[in-house]
Amino acid sequence: MFRRAPVVSAQAVPTLVTKTPDEGLALAIKLARLAVKAVQPDADIRKKLRPGYEEDATQLIAISHVVAVNFQTVAAANKYWR
Amino acid sequence: MFRRAPVVSAQAVPTLVTKTPDEGLALAIKLARLAVKAVQPDADIRKKLRPGYEEDATQLIAISHVVAVNFQTVAAANKYWR
Amino acid sequence: MFRRAPVVSAQAVPTLVTKTPDEGLALAIKLARLAVKAVQPDADIRKKLRPGYEEDATQLIAISHVVAVNFQTVAAANKYWR
Amino acid sequence: MFRRAPVVSAQAVPTLVTKTPDEGLALAIKLARLAVKAVQPDADIRKKLRPGYEEDATQLIAISHVVAVNFQTVAAANKYWR
Amino acid sequence: MFRRAPVVSAQAVPTLVTKTPDEGLALAIKLARLAVKAVQPDADIRKKLRPGYEEDATQLIAISHVVAVNFQTVAAANKYWR
Amino acid sequence: MFRRAPVVSAQAVPTLVTKTPDEGLALAIKLARLAVKAVQPDADIRKKLRPGYEEDATQLIAISHVVAVNFQTVAAANKYWR
Repeated sequence: MFRRAPVVSAQAVPTLVTKTPDEGLALAIKLARLAVKAVQPDADIRKKLRPGYEEDATQLIAISHVVAVNFQTVAAANKYWR
Repeated sequence: MFRRAPVVSAQAVPTLVTKTPDEGLALAIKLARLAVKAVQPDADIRKKLRPGYEEDATQLIAISHVVAVNFQTVAAANKYWR
Repeated sequence: MFRRAPVVSAQAVPTLVTKTPDEGLALAIKLARLAVKAVQPDADIRKKLRPGYEEDATQLIAISHVVAVNFQTVAAANKYWR
Repeated sequence: MFRRAPVVSAQAVPTLVTKTPDEGLALAIKLARLAVKAVQPDADIRKKLRPGYEEDATQLIAISHVVAVNFQTVAAANKYWR
Repeated sequence: MFRRAPVVSAQAVPTLVTKTPDEGLALAIKLARLAVKAVQPDADIRKKLRPGYEEDATQLIAISHVVAVNFQTVAAANKYWR
Repeated sequence: MFRRAPVVSAQAVPTLVTKTPDEGLALAIKLARLAVKAVQPDADIRKKLRPGYEEDATQLIAISHVVAVNFQTVAAANKYWR
């Protein structure tokens, strides 16, 4: 977050529109992942961090929280798939 | 969150529409659970984590927080069941 | 959150409509409590956790946060009691 | 949050409408305080917790966060005092 | 948060309207600061806390979070400066 | 957050409008960074903090959370690029 130029690949998220809530949830997870990737672009370091948080309930809940926020955005973009 | 391809099962959430707020709350919990499942697909590890967080007030509050965010989404999708 | 079937009692929240903001705030607290209850259905364990968080400022603030999120939902459902 | 019947005094918040953003911010703080009070109704315990969090940056930031969420609600209720 | 009467100075925030997003962001920071000031009115204590959080990434991120929530409010108040 | 006058550079964010969601995500990250910069204007201290949080899953998740909140704002400003 403190870097001058975190990188978000062009075309990583061409649209927020998805066909179903399931796909919307997958997109919400992708958005969370893209933010992490932009802040920590080194794939090896991200990989190294994985075992820790994936077996830690606190961190899984924290990720679920981020996904929930992104899902709000995606759901609104899709007018809640009504 | 750092995985390339977290999995959300197709048809896990076919719609955000529910009949009642009660059902909406249950869906909000389900959405939180699906995000966790996508990030940690291994059911055995998830099961192993359970006793810890279920008896930890901090984590129960954190889960309640995630559910509250998802419930906002579900409630909006249902126009607040008005 | 990781359980397959957290339980939300039918009729626990028949409506999000309340007469006053006070009642809305009470409902927001109830929603937070129902989420906790769904994740940890054992009343004895919940009771055992109580003394800890009730005398811990960090946790009281965290609960107040969850209530604030739920209150947003309830307030929107009531068009802010305008 | 785990109590059966947290108490919110009737008439504690008769309306979300305020004349100015300043008053709205004060109301947002009040809403945070009412939630804490409902969960921990014992004034002596709340008083005892005060010196700790009031000199702890982490907790002051956490409170500011809760107030920010409530302020969103109050601001929306007042159509942003436009 | 637990005090009976946190103080928000009248005229501290006469309006949420700003000319640009930059000014909106500055206002969002101000709102976060006012909440802290209301809860901890003693300027000396606030000053004493400063070196700690300003060199602590976790707390800087937490502050950025609060600012983000306030910025949502300010941006909505300004119809996103469109 | 406790400083009297955190600085946000004029023209740092002239508009919230972006052409694509990708650019919106980059702007959301920029907003988070600007808030940190306003609270901790010393570039050397920010640089010193970097190695710590960039290899800490908890902090990366926390940053992703802030970005998600800002992305909500940016997405709404762009009517979700529909």
